[in-house]
Amino acid sequence: MSRYAPTLVRLIGELVRLPGIGPKTAQRLTFHLLKTGREEALALAQAIVELKERIRSCAVCYNISEGEQCPICADPTRDGSVLCVVEEANDLWAIEKTATFKGRYHVLGGSLSPLEGRGPDQLTAKALLQRLEGGEVKEVILATNPNVEGEATAMYLSRLLKPLAVRATRIARGLPMGSDLEYADEVTLSKALEGRRDV
Amino acid sequence: MSRYAPTLVRLIGELVRLPGIGPKTAQRLTFHLLKTGREEALALAQAIVELKERIRSCAVCYNISEGEQCPICADPTRDGSVLCVVEEANDLWAIEKTATFKGRYHVLGGSLSPLEGRGPDQLTAKALLQRLEGGEVKEVILATNPNVEGEATAMYLSRLLKPLAVRATRIARGLPMGSDLEYADEVTLSKALEGRRDV
Repeated sequence: MSRYAPTLVRLIGELVRLPGIGPKTAQRLTFHLLKTGREEALALAQAIVELKERIRSCAVCYNISEGEQCPICADPTRDGSVLCVVEEANDLWAIEKTATFKGRYHVLGGSLSPLEGRGPDQLTAKALLQRLEGGEVKEVILATNPNVEGEATAMYLSRLLKPLAVRATRIARGLPMGSDLEYADEVTLSKALEGRRDV
Repeated sequence: MSRYAPTLVRLIGELVRLPGIGPKTAQRLTFHLLKTGREEALALAQAIVELKERIRSCAVCYNISEGEQCPICADPTRDGSVLCVVEEANDLWAIEKTATFKGRYHVLGGSLSPLEGRGPDQLTAKALLQRLEGGEVKEVILATNPNVEGEATAMYLSRLLKPLAVRATRIARGLPMGSDLEYADEVTLSKALEGRRDV
């Protein structure tokens, strides 16, 4: 590695900081960018620069946005009586892809994680409560991730919502479609049993 | 996907063009860059720009280089009587990492591949022959990849070298260290038998 040109070492170093990119992949990508056309490589660099310059968070729901409001908040056809609370903007897009939810969103900006120093003040929970003051929202769906931090965050939010005249629900945790009971982990299986419904 | 901000779609599109990066990874990397500090993201963009601006190929061996000559060609302690011919600069670095080769290199810039339109003129074979004219080089090690294109390229070069007073050798093809005869493919195993040596 020491014999690489410093410019290469630097790019490899920057790439390794990305999630899921190890030293080998970083090296392969660097050599690819070296071989690739000047225009294509610079287009990538430019796209990164513009990402940081153009993207901000929606003033209403904290979704990523290029304007003051994100496309979903700006869409008058969305149902304002249901609010889906997610941790990050990519969770929002995952739900949007299902094309089954027609309500609005609220992006928390993460989950409660004392270990990583993220408390309630790091989340947009206060803004969520302010949005509920109008009285338009009838249901808040807590769609944080079904892991330790996400569950704790949902629990925390449900307590915040309790005094308000709003229904708080949590997305179902159970066996994923197409999976096998035999290979399911105990926690998922017990959640699936716990969440059973009449057919 | 259509609901993403155009700036995001653009970066995802640029990332997907990289080898080994699918749509999911591109999306994950984009959201990571979105969350990451402005400085870190811009450092990556800048590193890509500098890669394309600073790096050129060594005037002697076509290795990647920041100056007129690469560090290996500029190193007077390297043995000029042995020339190791590789397809790409990353092959060169793979050999350098073994720290067992003290000679010099020649980077072909690829392999012969009629299907991809790469003939002898796309390689630096002519420059290789010119380097041999001085008479200093006594042995040329053909270290192209042990695949169809690499073997064809080695064959082609060995014919070019035949009339010259230089020894042409090919790296050994056989079972990789730590592997198992049982699981070796037939071609590798037959090459290993073919290349057997006295002990």
